[in-house]
Amino acid sequence: MALRVGVIGGGQLARMMIAPAVELGIDIRVLAEDDGMSAQLAATAVGDYRDLDTVRRFAADVDVVTFDHEHVPQEILRALVADGIPVHPGPDALRFAQDKLDMRARLTELDVPQPDWARVTGTAELQAFLDAHDGRGVVKTPRGGYDGKGVRVVSTADEAADWFAGLAEGGALLVEELVPFVRELAQQVARRPGGELAAYPVVETVQRDGVCAEVIAPAPGVDAEHLEEAARIGRAIAEGLGVTGMLAVELFQTADGRVLVNELAMRPHNSGHWSQDGAVTGQFEQHLRAVADLPLGGTTPIAPWSVMINILGGPADAGMVDRIPAALAASPLAKVHTYGKSPRPGRKVGHVNVAGADLEQTLATARGAAAAFA
Amino acid sequence: MALRVGVIGGGQLARMMIAPAVELGIDIRVLAEDDGMSAQLAATAVGDYRDLDTVRRFAADVDVVTFDHEHVPQEILRALVADGIPVHPGPDALRFAQDKLDMRARLTELDVPQPDWARVTGTAELQAFLDAHDGRGVVKTPRGGYDGKGVRVVSTADEAADWFAGLAEGGALLVEELVPFVRELAQQVARRPGGELAAYPVVETVQRDGVCAEVIAPAPGVDAEHLEEAARIGRAIAEGLGVTGMLAVELFQTADGRVLVNELAMRPHNSGHWSQDGAVTGQFEQHLRAVADLPLGGTTPIAPWSVMINILGGPADAGMVDRIPAALAASPLAKVHTYGKSPRPGRKVGHVNVAGADLEQTLATARGAAAAFA
Repeated sequence: MALRVGVIGGGQLARMMIAPAVELGIDIRVLAEDDGMSAQLAATAVGDYRDLDTVRRFAADVDVVTFDHEHVPQEILRALVADGIPVHPGPDALRFAQDKLDMRARLTELDVPQPDWARVTGTAELQAFLDAHDGRGVVKTPRGGYDGKGVRVVSTADEAADWFAGLAEGGALLVEELVPFVRELAQQVARRPGGELAAYPVVETVQRDGVCAEVIAPAPGVDAEHLEEAARIGRAIAEGLGVTGMLAVELFQTADGRVLVNELAMRPHNSGHWSQDGAVTGQFEQHLRAVADLPLGGTTPIAPWSVMINILGGPADAGMVDRIPAALAASPLAKVHTYGKSPRPGRKVGHVNVAGADLEQTLATARGAAAAFA
Repeated sequence: MALRVGVIGGGQLARMMIAPAVELGIDIRVLAEDDGMSAQLAATAVGDYRDLDTVRRFAADVDVVTFDHEHVPQEILRALVADGIPVHPGPDALRFAQDKLDMRARLTELDVPQPDWARVTGTAELQAFLDAHDGRGVVKTPRGGYDGKGVRVVSTADEAADWFAGLAEGGALLVEELVPFVRELAQQVARRPGGELAAYPVVETVQRDGVCAEVIAPAPGVDAEHLEEAARIGRAIAEGLGVTGMLAVELFQTADGRVLVNELAMRPHNSGHWSQDGAVTGQFEQHLRAVADLPLGGTTPIAPWSVMINILGGPADAGMVDRIPAALAASPLAKVHTYGKSPRPGRKVGHVNVAGADLEQTLATARGAAAAFA
């Protein structure tokens, strides 16, 4: 009988697991938040992932549970584990993706290079940190942020006063030094429960308005030393945090050549989408292999360069589906991936991958195809 | 709204359309012969494709109809067309894939190189053909043959007496010269309704017991002239027969360097599976793009060599799923594709693709992974 992998969450990451699951013969089952989600085709249940009974009922019919997102509460994850259901990544790892303060503290223990940071419970503590860091800092809510939400660059502590006021008893914010980075990188690593690891080449990510816009794989101009340093950081985090499945490590590269950990994601991540068409094993297949405890696949790029460009929704009444012909016509090399979402301005509704031998040409091809959606 | 492509037939070819359909945002709907078929995940109807009402009901909810196989009767295809439903490939093209006598006659009109052949209604006509061709020939039932079934090599007409006896009134068999080929090739071509064409590089196919066992892409040692000749034949047939979607042309290469058409298939074909992991656009995506009248994708290989090896079922009690870990462990380069079929001896239940820079090594890697299923 086919191995049954249950995915909690019906978004585009679950959707993009469907293709490799079908090919590998994995019976993929999705607990979707609602009808008509991105992963609708594989949805076998609809319900609230914060409801223990709902999740338990879903998990009873699968061999392993994994995720489209990191929002499933710890108590539910731990109940599944207590029920004897393999959960990958498990709660002990996921807490570091769920809480940025926990993550910073653990990375400090692991001696992984990261920005200066502090746990701050009020404006006085925050101001002290800012004063010690050229008067600026990045304040983050420890939980629930994504795509630039829950993140604020401040130059006085008062600018975070509303967040402090909203904290629960005993709560705190995270403040990090504002790293003068020259660019952002991302490192993908896959890890099986038994410890087998596979690292992808580090990539460059270009953010616009806090959202990933373009990815170039591998990161241009990265020398062998930095390639190895990024992979070493990725492996150290995957092992140190006990991650199973895909891990994405977002990194800052500084002018003096250091790489510092920005954020973590324990799942396939936007910065790894290029691998679907640019590597021997795409990150969605790799995630399935890792969480199902199957031997990992090769991570070698199939071409010297791969470029991923996100497609963001435009005016709500314009369907991206209508624009696919123009995008495909723009280049026979364009690989278009859709998320089955109704486009809203700024919402990620798909992406385009292009692999090629020449970086400038590959970038131009990808941008040309993506422009058909603009 | 997403484009709805209806696939008649729930076998592995329909199954392998699911992955690219999901990514491209095509709403794929399958009319399966039964519950639990290979393409189960996309099955929206179960029924007999020879029943007009069943097919009509299925087709009413899709934007275009295509196929997992060529067995849908002409009268049903023509009824759909009369209903105004786009059918690709259409009945006028499909008849040449359904009837080998019609195919031979049409290729003769198109002046496409093919073996000597004749329509024979009895043993006397067959014997006359054999006498004119060194006393041997290949007798074929015009309809219903596949994977070596409905094909018989004979050296006397009596060896086909049972087939003649079984013919309907006015029926006939096809006899072809036994071509002294040095190897078999296959040419894949995609064609859109408007005429846009895309040809893949010609491949070498290795048959065992009448079943495709291995494919090497491109065919080793084929010079530019033969590459072009094979592509020319493919294009001539796609255009001459009005094929829409994928066309596979199985070819004999003779000792004197000629290429002769053996068989045709108007759908993704076993000889094109390598393209899933070895070309910019896999044949299943290309078929969907062609039948949905979307711009065709690039057909360039992503590596110098690709090898496809079929996985045949062993003893009925041994599940191929249990052997996937061993196959994946054999090489991180092995791409395993499963058909969701219970293994029966000799039944195609999956295949392995490997792409690489060195042919011998790529062959060895693919064979090593496939051996895990033996």
